[in-house]
Amino acid sequence: MISPVLVAGAWRQAEDPVDTFTAVNPTTKAPLPDVYPVSGWPEAEEALRASQAAVNALREMPRELLADFLDQYATHIETRADALVEMAHLETALPRQPRLRSIELPRTTDQLRQAAAAVRDRSWCQATLDVARNIRSMYAPLGGAVVVFGPNNFPLAFNSVAGSDLATAIAVGNPVIAKANTGHPGTTRILAEAAFEAVQRAGLPPAMVQMLYRIPPDAGFRLVSHPLTGATGFTGSRAAGLRLKEAADRAGKPIYLELSSINPVFIMPGALRERMEAVADELFASCSLGVGQFCTKPGFVVLLQDTLSETFLQAVCERFAGPTGVLLGAGGVHTIAQAVEKMQGYGAQVLIGGEEVAGEGFRYANTLLRVSGDTYLENLHALQIEAFGVVSLAVLARDVAQMREIARSLEGNLTGTFYTHSQGEDDALYDQIAPIVRDRVGRLLNDKMPTGVAVSPAMNHGGPYPATGHPGFTAVGIPAAMLRFAALHCYDNVRPHRLPPELRDQNPTGAMWRFIDGAWTQASV
Amino acid sequence: MISPVLVAGAWRQAEDPVDTFTAVNPTTKAPLPDVYPVSGWPEAEEALRASQAAVNALREMPRELLADFLDQYATHIETRADALVEMAHLETALPRQPRLRSIELPRTTDQLRQAAAAVRDRSWCQATLDVARNIRSMYAPLGGAVVVFGPNNFPLAFNSVAGSDLATAIAVGNPVIAKANTGHPGTTRILAEAAFEAVQRAGLPPAMVQMLYRIPPDAGFRLVSHPLTGATGFTGSRAAGLRLKEAADRAGKPIYLELSSINPVFIMPGALRERMEAVADELFASCSLGVGQFCTKPGFVVLLQDTLSETFLQAVCERFAGPTGVLLGAGGVHTIAQAVEKMQGYGAQVLIGGEEVAGEGFRYANTLLRVSGDTYLENLHALQIEAFGVVSLAVLARDVAQMREIARSLEGNLTGTFYTHSQGEDDALYDQIAPIVRDRVGRLLNDKMPTGVAVSPAMNHGGPYPATGHPGFTAVGIPAAMLRFAALHCYDNVRPHRLPPELRDQNPTGAMWRFIDGAWTQASV
Repeated sequence: MISPVLVAGAWRQAEDPVDTFTAVNPTTKAPLPDVYPVSGWPEAEEALRASQAAVNALREMPRELLADFLDQYATHIETRADALVEMAHLETALPRQPRLRSIELPRTTDQLRQAAAAVRDRSWCQATLDVARNIRSMYAPLGGAVVVFGPNNFPLAFNSVAGSDLATAIAVGNPVIAKANTGHPGTTRILAEAAFEAVQRAGLPPAMVQMLYRIPPDAGFRLVSHPLTGATGFTGSRAAGLRLKEAADRAGKPIYLELSSINPVFIMPGALRERMEAVADELFASCSLGVGQFCTKPGFVVLLQDTLSETFLQAVCERFAGPTGVLLGAGGVHTIAQAVEKMQGYGAQVLIGGEEVAGEGFRYANTLLRVSGDTYLENLHALQIEAFGVVSLAVLARDVAQMREIARSLEGNLTGTFYTHSQGEDDALYDQIAPIVRDRVGRLLNDKMPTGVAVSPAMNHGGPYPATGHPGFTAVGIPAAMLRFAALHCYDNVRPHRLPPELRDQNPTGAMWRFIDGAWTQASV
Repeated sequence: MISPVLVAGAWRQAEDPVDTFTAVNPTTKAPLPDVYPVSGWPEAEEALRASQAAVNALREMPRELLADFLDQYATHIETRADALVEMAHLETALPRQPRLRSIELPRTTDQLRQAAAAVRDRSWCQATLDVARNIRSMYAPLGGAVVVFGPNNFPLAFNSVAGSDLATAIAVGNPVIAKANTGHPGTTRILAEAAFEAVQRAGLPPAMVQMLYRIPPDAGFRLVSHPLTGATGFTGSRAAGLRLKEAADRAGKPIYLELSSINPVFIMPGALRERMEAVADELFASCSLGVGQFCTKPGFVVLLQDTLSETFLQAVCERFAGPTGVLLGAGGVHTIAQAVEKMQGYGAQVLIGGEEVAGEGFRYANTLLRVSGDTYLENLHALQIEAFGVVSLAVLARDVAQMREIARSLEGNLTGTFYTHSQGEDDALYDQIAPIVRDRVGRLLNDKMPTGVAVSPAMNHGGPYPATGHPGFTAVGIPAAMLRFAALHCYDNVRPHRLPPELRDQNPTGAMWRFIDGAWTQASV
């Protein structure tokens, strides 16, 4: 029995699937029993047509239904928590506790509820009124489906049918077509069942949420570039992301990418003098979180070349010598091995690890490498490579000038981090390096590792290319992440009764923030 | 003597120009005396390197200098008003009065001063503070140059070195590399002189504003995709814009395009019953403004096929029978003739005009065409073509259902306009058509032609592809247009004295609007 897809408001068998696949249990390396279809282009196109019907139906519906859906969906996820955690654990080997049950699942439901609150609050749309000229504008739905490709590393919180992309796309008022990650189709199915129930309960158009497990690459290119597509959210590998970007760009369709990032961490000498052991603890904890499979894992550590740094590297090695975790899949072992081999080929030296670990589960040894600033600068493109596991490269700068050069060499990253002396001993050095790093990252941190990505209105989980496709948008944080899936709608001299409630003289909720004649206010005109 | 370029903080002769060119007086069809260089790639690259030095120097400078520059620049333009108006008239044939002197020049200085005010006010950057978690974010400069390609139709207000793109890019804090429009290099030179004086007076880095007259296409592709480029603003033809977009997209560099638009106008029967003559006046005035060379010219008029519409078309024809204006150049005559010929080839019938006008200056007859809804729908892609002159196509819909189908067929446009009965007789029809048009345009208008584009915070001079490259951004309106040239910068746990003033607890101006813990406020934390 092949698992059903969710298309056009119904669970049904895929029509003429081009293939089937199964997931693999990363702990046992054995295939899991459920079989999933690879849908062909006609099925994807049918989903697009159904989503257009949803776009049309939504125009007549109150926005509150979107909030109802998001809240209900969160509740339905909680109802299915046991099944979800069990299936996600089987498919990804991520621990049931605390990771899946106590961290990722609550994060998922929290995101959905924050999105619901944003819908009810309405301030997210930045209603802007020029009263004298009667010109009014706001962010609004795209008029097409948002296609979401989810990553392998967060089966719940970034799942294509439950994560930040879905929550924010729906909160704006766009239907979603989710493409499951091949690593956790069973988890995605349970989530999609919860989502579809919530769609029905809330009374939204039946095709508000659709889900396909997998499509051939060519169907993906057609999907992101189709006239009925509004925009795409993609989180995953750089190679796959850039191919989708090319297709979307050619058709003028927005695509938001969250690609690879090495997340440089500059550890300054004062911090090492002051609290070396604590910094080593924090670095290892951050590197090994989720078995190193975080987009924000610190994969690139910059130090000044001196005896203090040598002692620090030894302290880090001791921590890396601990037990390994099970990776998400066989592909992970392969790509880590490739990346480590590449780094070695360009002059990096393995301090610890550097090999696959035999035995139960897909494992690769915790790996720390080092390279001199000179060697790095000769091979800087090759050595800025993400290894998606417990792998980090220490770069030892000859002096401050070289540290600046290393900072200048950095490609776009999600994050850039500085550890400095708490009483200001590193401040002069910080001032020389941080401004260079600032322009090259989305989020700048002090004395805190980058792996925690709070769902905060002030978060930026984004950054300059190639970390993402656009430096002005965040994939996490509500309401900011909603703006990715919105169009700017202006109304010029439009009669009052034809305006959306957000732009009428009367404040629609009595509390919505609007920018009226140059000032933010909750008042009516 | 070849006119000098403005590169790296100095007026100088172009180094190894690949060619030279002159502008043409559209009224006399004779070349103007001044000779301008076509710069090669090395000169463009030098400008990029100089702009990076400006980026670095700017980090140490107070933002107020940007405001000083913008204000001074406006004043320097006013000082040169006579020379500017004269040169712009010579190069474009646009009337000195009122167009250049009383409309476009004040619009230009007003934009610069609004941008200066936005710099001082600082609210544009949407500082967002999550105080409890100490996560703070704001929009900030891109860390690279903004490259601006200006259009031919507004030698002052959209000039690459003086218009909305320059004003907003600089207000964010980015240096600008302007590529002059080939149609008005002399005007651009005078503006660049005024700009450079203002750069020096304000004490900004000398390469804050640079200007090249022309570069070969290949150098353009390299410029928009270069690592030192932050983003590009392009206003011009769809063909040239899409080639630049392809190059920029491939390098992951943001590019904002303002391309062609036919700006559909739906004229409903009640409006014709009520005020036919007035609507005909407004339509002709809007079509012929700037000799039809406005991005927002109504080039596509949708009517119900009945005797009222026939009478209306006659009334419009009478107005189109008036005198013609001089176009910006020989290319204009050629592309209009091509577009009209294409429309005829796909079944449109010329009601009036349809031919080049001999005699003084580049002229094409004011041209009104008509086509049935049936014929249009058979050739809808071919018939959605911009003719950049006093040309408009009337599409006659068989019935309301067909009018809906025509609305659904529309590509992305800057504007969509509805003329309706003032007492509500068209409201039912409006409700059937307007929601379809809403998703396909950036700005929706009622009973007002789209050619006026107010510099208002609520303006959207943008729209879905192919009108622009992204549906979420406007090219006109301050502060909104600034967001095109900004990156989102997040500070996570960064120490207070290392934060930019906008993100510290204390409100930096006492009046700046910030989004603190979910509410907009002018207070400090």
